[in-house]
Amino acid sequence: MTTKQLIEQIRLKKSFLCIGLDVDLAKIPQHLLQEEDPIFEFNKAIIDATHHLCVAYKPKTAFYEAYGIKGWQALKKTIQYLNKKHPEIFTIADAKRGYIGNTSRMYAKAFFEDLAFDSITVAPYMGKDSVEPFLAFKDKHTILLALTSNQGAFDFQTKPVNGKELYKEVIETSTSWKNSENLMYVVGATKAEFFKEIRKIIPNSFLLVPGIGTQGGNLQDVCKYGMSDNIGLLINSSREIIYASNDENFAEEAAKKASELQQEMGIILRS
Amino acid sequence: MTTKQLIEQIRLKKSFLCIGLDVDLAKIPQHLLQEEDPIFEFNKAIIDATHHLCVAYKPKTAFYEAYGIKGWQALKKTIQYLNKKHPEIFTIADAKRGYIGNTSRMYAKAFFEDLAFDSITVAPYMGKDSVEPFLAFKDKHTILLALTSNQGAFDFQTKPVNGKELYKEVIETSTSWKNSENLMYVVGATKAEFFKEIRKIIPNSFLLVPGIGTQGGNLQDVCKYGMSDNIGLLINSSREIIYASNDENFAEEAAKKASELQQEMGIILRS
Repeated sequence: MTTKQLIEQIRLKKSFLCIGLDVDLAKIPQHLLQEEDPIFEFNKAIIDATHHLCVAYKPKTAFYEAYGIKGWQALKKTIQYLNKKHPEIFTIADAKRGYIGNTSRMYAKAFFEDLAFDSITVAPYMGKDSVEPFLAFKDKHTILLALTSNQGAFDFQTKPVNGKELYKEVIETSTSWKNSENLMYVVGATKAEFFKEIRKIIPNSFLLVPGIGTQGGNLQDVCKYGMSDNIGLLINSSREIIYASNDENFAEEAAKKASELQQEMGIILRS
Repeated sequence: MTTKQLIEQIRLKKSFLCIGLDVDLAKIPQHLLQEEDPIFEFNKAIIDATHHLCVAYKPKTAFYEAYGIKGWQALKKTIQYLNKKHPEIFTIADAKRGYIGNTSRMYAKAFFEDLAFDSITVAPYMGKDSVEPFLAFKDKHTILLALTSNQGAFDFQTKPVNGKELYKEVIETSTSWKNSENLMYVVGATKAEFFKEIRKIIPNSFLLVPGIGTQGGNLQDVCKYGMSDNIGLLINSSREIIYASNDENFAEEAAKKASELQQEMGIILRS
């Protein structure tokens, strides 16, 4: 999917919501455990109920990998279902990888070609040659971890390097990489004031923003400081939506939560 | 496996060699492709031929993940074979992960309990709360990326933070984390002179060292600057050993290469 198509979808749906499909078997409605593939059935129900309210889905691959082969199968079925039923949806493999050249190439091929995700999250610590193989794919997007929403973000990401914080050094350096127009960035909502600074470096790039709600981030503040002329924001919400209820009506309740966020976004987009 | 047991194995085998099981179907002997599980058959043959010459095996999980469900199955069979036939061998899941709290916990459980690896490589960028869940497991080891052996290592890892390079800041900070005695570190062989500085911060920790041979690192230099009183080094070699030949005699040729390195190590350990 091109960035232009993503922006069109945002304007059409009046939503820049991304729903995180972080499926934990201990948290999903227990009646689903009788199904042959409970993870996929859960995702399918959530997707069916919410696809008109969001523009992106983001499975965190660690959750699937934690269930071994069964998890891997559920991830594959989920992305296949999304690509077949909702090709207009932007898909993010939240894998947070960082590998050297050859390995990155193999991995990018697996996620961009075989699984056909639109994008993947990648860690910056290993530098340029660990990221460029992902950037080489046409109309695919590499989402670089810049400033994460966890407490540990302050351990290294905000440390001063060459007179500025490491996350800014990461963003600035990455803009010189080959095909850097395919880059997006993870920036946690918990530090809304940081968005102003980030927009000075990358005025137009899309930012994937976790940490709204449960982790304390505020949607209004993030939009105030982080929105670009072409929106440039994907706001992620996972647990608050997908675990809104663990009764039989879980998908309906998830849609209610997603709808609340979408309506708030609609107001912001009109203003 | 405890660190003490690992050191005993090193002294017994006169080897601190780790063999990287980075299996690429395009590079393995083509007659294996007729097998039901070519990746596992390749690993089994390599393990059978080399287990007496090394103390550790390190599958890079990206290679397995790149083959989807089949790759995942091959990884599982490989670690099960190792744990059953050679429980004295130290096993490393080279996954280079970095996740926040809950996700790290799920992932650690999958790799340390279900797959029963002895250790896993973890990226530091997301900080303390992304690493501590791995450290919580008894007699399991977390191997933190400090200074990698690729060119991109110079993009961020060697940048000055608080008057010292970022990789040193990572190492120093990590020593204050809970259960930090379970930490080891990835330090590339290509920068042998850096080992002297690193040993000032962590005199005794084990270092996992990629980059000998193909990437230009020198075993003598690494040992001169990096060896501790309890050895403290695991030298990894992947392609040079496992792809020594792609004929029918590949396992034999791999053993020859491994034996050359083991003999060099034997001499260093005696001196």
